[in-house]
Amino acid sequence: MKEQEIPYKIYLSENEIPKYWYNVRAVMKNKPAPLLNPGTHQPMTSDELSHVFCDELVKQELDDTDELIPIPQEIRDFYKMYRPSPLVRAYCLEKQLGTPAHIYYKFEGNNTSGSHKLNSAIAQAYYAKKQGLKGVTTETGAGQWGTALSMACAYFGLDCHVFMVKCSYEQKPFRREVMRTYGARVTPSPSMTTNVGRKINEEFPGTNGSLGCAISEAVEEAVSHEGYRYVLGSVLSQVLLHQSVIGQETMTALDKYGVTPDIIIGCAGGGSNLGGLIAPFVGRELKGGPKYQIIAVEPASCPSMTRGVYAYDFCDTGHVCPLAKMYTLGSEFIPSPNHAGGLRYHGMASIVSQLYHDGIIEARSVEQTSVFKAAEYFARVEGILPAPESSHAIRVAIDEALKCKETGEAKNIVFGLTGTGYFDMVAYQQFNDGAMNDFIPTDADLEKSISQIPHFPGNLA
Amino acid sequence: MKEQEIPYKIYLSENEIPKYWYNVRAVMKNKPAPLLNPGTHQPMTSDELSHVFCDELVKQELDDTDELIPIPQEIRDFYKMYRPSPLVRAYCLEKQLGTPAHIYYKFEGNNTSGSHKLNSAIAQAYYAKKQGLKGVTTETGAGQWGTALSMACAYFGLDCHVFMVKCSYEQKPFRREVMRTYGARVTPSPSMTTNVGRKINEEFPGTNGSLGCAISEAVEEAVSHEGYRYVLGSVLSQVLLHQSVIGQETMTALDKYGVTPDIIIGCAGGGSNLGGLIAPFVGRELKGGPKYQIIAVEPASCPSMTRGVYAYDFCDTGHVCPLAKMYTLGSEFIPSPNHAGGLRYHGMASIVSQLYHDGIIEARSVEQTSVFKAAEYFARVEGILPAPESSHAIRVAIDEALKCKETGEAKNIVFGLTGTGYFDMVAYQQFNDGAMNDFIPTDADLEKSISQIPHFPGNLA
Repeated sequence: MKEQEIPYKIYLSENEIPKYWYNVRAVMKNKPAPLLNPGTHQPMTSDELSHVFCDELVKQELDDTDELIPIPQEIRDFYKMYRPSPLVRAYCLEKQLGTPAHIYYKFEGNNTSGSHKLNSAIAQAYYAKKQGLKGVTTETGAGQWGTALSMACAYFGLDCHVFMVKCSYEQKPFRREVMRTYGARVTPSPSMTTNVGRKINEEFPGTNGSLGCAISEAVEEAVSHEGYRYVLGSVLSQVLLHQSVIGQETMTALDKYGVTPDIIIGCAGGGSNLGGLIAPFVGRELKGGPKYQIIAVEPASCPSMTRGVYAYDFCDTGHVCPLAKMYTLGSEFIPSPNHAGGLRYHGMASIVSQLYHDGIIEARSVEQTSVFKAAEYFARVEGILPAPESSHAIRVAIDEALKCKETGEAKNIVFGLTGTGYFDMVAYQQFNDGAMNDFIPTDADLEKSISQIPHFPGNLA
Repeated sequence: MKEQEIPYKIYLSENEIPKYWYNVRAVMKNKPAPLLNPGTHQPMTSDELSHVFCDELVKQELDDTDELIPIPQEIRDFYKMYRPSPLVRAYCLEKQLGTPAHIYYKFEGNNTSGSHKLNSAIAQAYYAKKQGLKGVTTETGAGQWGTALSMACAYFGLDCHVFMVKCSYEQKPFRREVMRTYGARVTPSPSMTTNVGRKINEEFPGTNGSLGCAISEAVEEAVSHEGYRYVLGSVLSQVLLHQSVIGQETMTALDKYGVTPDIIIGCAGGGSNLGGLIAPFVGRELKGGPKYQIIAVEPASCPSMTRGVYAYDFCDTGHVCPLAKMYTLGSEFIPSPNHAGGLRYHGMASIVSQLYHDGIIEARSVEQTSVFKAAEYFARVEGILPAPESSHAIRVAIDEALKCKETGEAKNIVFGLTGTGYFDMVAYQQFNDGAMNDFIPTDADLEKSISQIPHFPGNLA
């Protein structure tokens, strides 16, 4: 098929929405390490996990053998309201850069949550409903995950209780109002309604909260109320599984036009978007297909892969969750609050961490002013105002396209555009005013937080 | 074709983006009355208009004979970045309402301007560029038009100067920052940089500004700088012409599935969306096709059609623009500033006014709390958080669907969903807090503002 026949936007039909989630763990030679009980250091059992998580989601969390996991029809029906998402050929960006590269991006921002988070939120809400639960609890920082979960719970008539980090609750009232419009209860964290919240408020009067504290509150709230479970928007293998619809649609669209990607780029905070985008490509590669250059892009302010260690660590600051083996900066690491984007998580999904450890993917870190330069450039040329998170991938896509301009190579570059920046205008304003800075942790900062990773036999070897 | 084959979202291919704008004036028996020179009360000539507007746009403004006006390839290329927009079958809404009606909506919100405004902005920027101009000026209230124009100007490398009503500039900083991100200069109005702005600031120290004042400033700025012209986002016939892409795509999508709409609904402020949505349907009807029930929905707080008069009136509060014949509440009419939606214009596009006057379309007014109830309901059921403006159409679509539930009729209801409400969360917050009220002008209010419509022979007969 000739290049000029590729439209600006490749839309698949609704019949082409994946019928299965793609479980890349099934084809990984080295499986991601299991979650550990923080007390016994033994793998978490299904029983232990099901106190916190929905039963079916526990099964998915533990399943590293089934390559294809059927997507229930009810979830596919919901997907039809906003999927398939377009794979866009960035003709205008290519032209403006003067690059021979062909650039494609999978755009997940055309839904009210504004990001890919809805793909997993609807699945988690569905299984909670199917289990006959009353509701779910979660935490949210910037608010994308909380918004997505609120939408999913509204659809299935589930109660949704979101613990929103206090500083975001106050500084991002609009995100909060979107959640309320979808019927969610939004509580600023730390609150006075949980033990852990009261304890933190007593110890640190006037604290603005943190994601770690909000997680602890959401977990406590779930386990102490009949008919509730806790749900999480990233890091977990089940979340990456649900997000595989991104990668599968991307692959179907590219296959349709005979395009083989040379480079696949995704931003990486907890790893949900990147893990979902690359899953089927990694699967194809591991089964003898083409070798792709896969680049995980993280912020220089929170460089878990490029400067962290591979070890078992706590997933939350409050240390109430299981231990996960991952690239981590230590659960005490607090990225600069001045960093405008998301991607502020100290660790990385176990699947992504293992793939990185095995050299199947690479990682790169970028500084935030250069990320916002790329974001502004992209907005003006391609029309879409990107989320700060997504703009990390844009930065590297542009860098790679400019390398092609030097070498004359017509590489196919594919990146994930996870969402829109409509609720991030405070960050854009900083950038527009020339008031944005870069924040890079010192070696001493990292040594300190890494030193707090739990020491036990085999860990931090 | 069987009903079940209709997908949730009907996406046309990029080849199906219209190649012509549809000029409904060509088939109207009673043409919209021409713009008048406010001094002489004679029809504005092409020469007079071209001091303010781009030459090609003046031609389009005056053309009431050519039914099809070719869309330049450069504009169609830009349209490909976000069009065709989806025509959505509202299966979930139908099910939730329990109505036998079939509901469709044309969704124009999947672009960064968040609304249909981009369809005309890119056309106006293109003609300005083609004429060799340096830039354009405009006014914006809520900010959707200013955002759309900023995007269009960034694409063509034109300077863009937006006069933003001061209260919006301060209360909607995020809209302002989107415009700045696209490189626009945004000036709070009234400013100290124009004569009219200085005069108003002197007369009314501390004023928050008004759309009328911002228009006057933008026009002065354009005519007093070499290489600049003024552009407008609604009311004018050229704008409705550009917006006909909405209606044409809707018609193509419905024709493809053999669906004939019984009712077509659009919100109406200045008339740009409604005029664009209905243009080809009115054309088909006037040429002997089926009779459609077309409903223009306006806010009860600014009821230009349902409670105004049909007369020549000023388009702006500052009285610097030509007179237009339209349904109007008088140019001195100021809708309650507490009204959360847009649609706060005292008049109505001449084309829409004439169609209403001739009984080809009907008009209905709705109150804002009932509009926000419909908006919240729609958001939860269909997933999309609608703009307050668009939600006026949702309100009436739901009302009509519920009538069908009573009568058992399976009518086809089509409405325009012009945009998203992401930058309108202050209004949603009011609604969520139960702090929203309805504002309906008294008869005395309207008599007063209507009495200020200019009296001259033949007007206000």
